[in-house]
Amino acid sequence: MDIKQQIDLANQEAVSRLIQGDPVLADIAPAGQVIPGLQGRMILHAGPPIPWSAMCGAMRGALIGITLFEGWASSVAEAEALLASGEVSLEPNHHHQAVGPMAGTISPSLPVFVVENRAFGNRAFCRNVEGMQQFGDYSEKALAGLRFWRDVAAPAMAAAVHQAGGISLKPIITQALQMGDELHNRHSASSSLFANALAIPMIQASVPQPQLLQTLGYMIGHNLLFLGLAMAAGKAIADPARDIACSTVVTAMCRNGTEFGIRVSGLGDEWFTAPAPKVDGLYVPGYREEDAGLDMGDSAITETVGWGGFVLGGAPGILTLVGGTAEQALAYTREMAHITVTRHPHYLMPAFDFEGAPLGIDIRKVVQTGITPIIDTAIAHRESGHPKIGGGLVRAPLACFKKALARFGQKYVS
Amino acid sequence: MDIKQQIDLANQEAVSRLIQGDPVLADIAPAGQVIPGLQGRMILHAGPPIPWSAMCGAMRGALIGITLFEGWASSVAEAEALLASGEVSLEPNHHHQAVGPMAGTISPSLPVFVVENRAFGNRAFCRNVEGMQQFGDYSEKALAGLRFWRDVAAPAMAAAVHQAGGISLKPIITQALQMGDELHNRHSASSSLFANALAIPMIQASVPQPQLLQTLGYMIGHNLLFLGLAMAAGKAIADPARDIACSTVVTAMCRNGTEFGIRVSGLGDEWFTAPAPKVDGLYVPGYREEDAGLDMGDSAITETVGWGGFVLGGAPGILTLVGGTAEQALAYTREMAHITVTRHPHYLMPAFDFEGAPLGIDIRKVVQTGITPIIDTAIAHRESGHPKIGGGLVRAPLACFKKALARFGQKYVS
Repeated sequence: MDIKQQIDLANQEAVSRLIQGDPVLADIAPAGQVIPGLQGRMILHAGPPIPWSAMCGAMRGALIGITLFEGWASSVAEAEALLASGEVSLEPNHHHQAVGPMAGTISPSLPVFVVENRAFGNRAFCRNVEGMQQFGDYSEKALAGLRFWRDVAAPAMAAAVHQAGGISLKPIITQALQMGDELHNRHSASSSLFANALAIPMIQASVPQPQLLQTLGYMIGHNLLFLGLAMAAGKAIADPARDIACSTVVTAMCRNGTEFGIRVSGLGDEWFTAPAPKVDGLYVPGYREEDAGLDMGDSAITETVGWGGFVLGGAPGILTLVGGTAEQALAYTREMAHITVTRHPHYLMPAFDFEGAPLGIDIRKVVQTGITPIIDTAIAHRESGHPKIGGGLVRAPLACFKKALARFGQKYVS
Repeated sequence: MDIKQQIDLANQEAVSRLIQGDPVLADIAPAGQVIPGLQGRMILHAGPPIPWSAMCGAMRGALIGITLFEGWASSVAEAEALLASGEVSLEPNHHHQAVGPMAGTISPSLPVFVVENRAFGNRAFCRNVEGMQQFGDYSEKALAGLRFWRDVAAPAMAAAVHQAGGISLKPIITQALQMGDELHNRHSASSSLFANALAIPMIQASVPQPQLLQTLGYMIGHNLLFLGLAMAAGKAIADPARDIACSTVVTAMCRNGTEFGIRVSGLGDEWFTAPAPKVDGLYVPGYREEDAGLDMGDSAITETVGWGGFVLGGAPGILTLVGGTAEQALAYTREMAHITVTRHPHYLMPAFDFEGAPLGIDIRKVVQTGITPIIDTAIAHRESGHPKIGGGLVRAPLACFKKALARFGQKYVS
């Protein structure tokens, strides 16, 4: 069997594992109690590894916020000094089976979604999504949001999850993809369906009425509620496809606001990085292009498993957030079929006569065609202290794929 | 001002009233307590007026079912004899500010949605949607469904509506149209959003827990739940556009399984009818085309106000139910723009770059172009005693529009 056949077989195995993924929300619990290796003064962040000194403003702001939230410092200056001192370990989420939106900060007392891939038994974690602290805002209002999540919403939702014996996410994902969600930045349907799914077990779990009503209000009013679940599901689905010898399928794409990094199944834990790109997008009133930081977040795990930009053609409702036309959205999805191994047999798009989502990014195809993955994403400020400032579209840098393919050649061909 | 200018002005007024429509769910109450003129032994039915002797099998079956439900007869034979005797008054829903899905049967003790158009103060009514009795099935299971609605779900939902002081439907409709619903046969998003909107007030209203959980379960599991609300909303929106002198805009389209009828704003209460057409569709396993009755139901009130077939291009998820391709669905919506007065400024379709729904069917344009309204609908059996057997697409008969235009000529031009 020649190397080409070996690669094709390995890639079939990789996408077969992605297809089998069966993500179930098993728990919501403080990160320090469930994430392997997260202990003491440690904060997990989005993207490939990066020291404090190289971090962008938004990620620094988010770290300051979460340090204050943990009570490890009592002022912004104190938090900044502590973080610069190296006394708080900063590690990538992806090194701990986790992912996080935007700056991605996860600290021990922050409750996270625990998603189990019941087809393989592995677990993945993601934090809740909000529009302030994860973008670098460390204001009192931003921290109050984290405390509400920790003290009110997360425990009530956890009680419902325990009562239900877990919430299967694949049925919600499958339906939402047929209801105009692309599961990266548009989660209107999935969030509504998830709130439906939790209401009955939350009542059955006897959550006290004020907390019950506050939590239902939070869930019903939060149209990106499901993003944290989609990301944890994406990570849980992607991880079993890691470490397949000879596979050229991408198993992670993420950004820390400074660098964009990818991992490839046949290439182990190595990160292949390039400078994080600028996002082409639309801005919240009061902000403009000059204010924008570079691409950031682990949320491109959604594109890694075939959602987000890859199914944009089925989710034109998102164009109010990221710009562009319905025809362009359809074209992006068609284009992604050129760089993927197969179509997902269950994640179907009505706008394409129920064709499946393009699945399994093949670094060979990316380099051969020059077509890079399209990602729809939010935009953070280039400086710390701001909430979300916009949303848009971005292309993964070709250099990541070229570097990975070069290493693949060294490892398997030479 | 010549007659053409007068018509254009009148039609602008008609669509302006349709656009202003602001439907709010104000109550859910037994029909006999809220629907004007519904008293004693009276049953309302779908479509234009029709005597028992001319009714199709499915409508007869539904009338038998609702007669048993009311306790006016204790056997099918007894119910049939009673209905044939003329001792139960049978009148069209549309003559009582009401609409009903399929056979459309509304009897005094059946709770109905009460929707108020807050822009004009008028009210409209529609019954709950289910897949059995309204299709002509009078089995014990079908009747048990009506009793559950009357005794459990409707009172619990009514308590929530009272607690909330009414539920505004326009925000739900607007969102659902951007989430792949067309609001005639696909209500996945609207039903999910509506269930969430009712959960908090239903808890606050202290509905007893078993009833609360059963009702939440009913709402969450019923993906056509919102159809009854969309129909009541459609009727509430359409009625203020009636009786505008010189207007050629359609204010109702409905079918009784034997005849298809339309009403036109400038032509008062007159029905312009033609034989009900056959539906071109897909069948539930075990049934086939030969089993199908003709087109039936008041649900084409949704197309009358710009939803259903008119926004099919934005709701390709429905094609699994009615057949066809995404490109055909887009083409239907484009085609409907040729026979309508304007675009709705709030009911937007992402798939058409947020263009508005085609609004206000002009009988002149229908006759001039030969393009008739496209309606997506469910299919009942041609004989009584069956549940839903399929779904498909149907065209309103051109003859209705020709007859109406002829009368318009007599009334305004000659």
